[in-house]
Amino acid sequence: MTETNGGTTETRHIGILLFDGMEELDAVGPWEVFAWWTRHFPEDGYVVTTFSHDGAAVNCEKGLVVEAHHSTATVPELEVLLHPGGDGTQRLSTAEEHLRWLREQRERVSLLTSVCTGSLVLAASGLLRGRAATSNRSALERLGNLDRSIAVHGGVPYVDDGDVVTSAGIAAGIEMALHLVGRLASVERAHQVREGIEYAPNSAG
Amino acid sequence: MTETNGGTTETRHIGILLFDGMEELDAVGPWEVFAWWTRHFPEDGYVVTTFSHDGAAVNCEKGLVVEAHHSTATVPELEVLLHPGGDGTQRLSTAEEHLRWLREQRERVSLLTSVCTGSLVLAASGLLRGRAATSNRSALERLGNLDRSIAVHGGVPYVDDGDVVTSAGIAAGIEMALHLVGRLASVERAHQVREGIEYAPNSAG
Repeated sequence: MTETNGGTTETRHIGILLFDGMEELDAVGPWEVFAWWTRHFPEDGYVVTTFSHDGAAVNCEKGLVVEAHHSTATVPELEVLLHPGGDGTQRLSTAEEHLRWLREQRERVSLLTSVCTGSLVLAASGLLRGRAATSNRSALERLGNLDRSIAVHGGVPYVDDGDVVTSAGIAAGIEMALHLVGRLASVERAHQVREGIEYAPNSAG
Repeated sequence: MTETNGGTTETRHIGILLFDGMEELDAVGPWEVFAWWTRHFPEDGYVVTTFSHDGAAVNCEKGLVVEAHHSTATVPELEVLLHPGGDGTQRLSTAEEHLRWLREQRERVSLLTSVCTGSLVLAASGLLRGRAATSNRSALERLGNLDRSIAVHGGVPYVDDGDVVTSAGIAAGIEMALHLVGRLASVERAHQVREGIEYAPNSAG
């Protein structure tokens, strides 16, 4: 937390939304990428935090319980917002208060990102109108049905449409987060993080 | 939780140890693999759970707080024990009570596994004597220094030495967990889980 007073450098915040029914790795994969990056390279000026609407711990889809660092009321002004997926997105996709909050955030954040079925909630909020996007491979049709104006892409780990970046299912969020490190810092930095977390998987299983 | 009474099928438990200073993805990567598998294929007879020594939530190395489902006193008898890594392993490597507990577990579990620097704790407990093992790439020398009888392997995502399987750093735990699904169920099942969590990463970042 290197906020300077009167200097030109201000800490920039990446926020990961947590919610009940969130898929565990959707959030913790990108968390690891961003946290590894920002802890090892604080000079890049970013920090990552988590928050839930009410600031309480969340019960994830597969049963893990993760605490939130903030509520939406206390989370710092974000440059990057990441919306995970999971079964809980079914509820969020019709939760007017959540969709309204997302549209408000869209006006404030430079980069709106989602993992897995998180893109269904972005679509339900109208924020993917006319944009290119992806989702969990089992949710691509649903994504198109939510908003016919979306250019739905399958078979890719993520779709970078400028100020909106959406990823495919679950583990693809790690790949997307590494890509975002490349955008926010440098390709060299993304490579360092990839090496640091030893994310260079072969098909060994 | 399909424990049957008097039948031949009993639920087999995979336990992930949580501790302060644990690296987030070391635990949550394998958690996602095992949870996705066991929730989608309960007929395979496995469940996965987490536990900490006292049952309390743990403060991970990068700042995430994760709750435990059990304490060591309440966790079910395990078939598979997974020991994550992280800075907290420095403390655990000299914590006699923890090392004694590990040696006791070794007598009870069929499969002892670790991610990242978790193998340093296994080595400190004497359980890697004369065995093949790996660790975070930055900890390979430390692993060998802890016990000269260990055959240390670098440059591989994991080392399967039968009843002891150790993985390389952080994200390599996902690869190891997929391999373990292959051993505990079938290679076809491991493939299904890999597809399901969309873990088929290319170097796109």
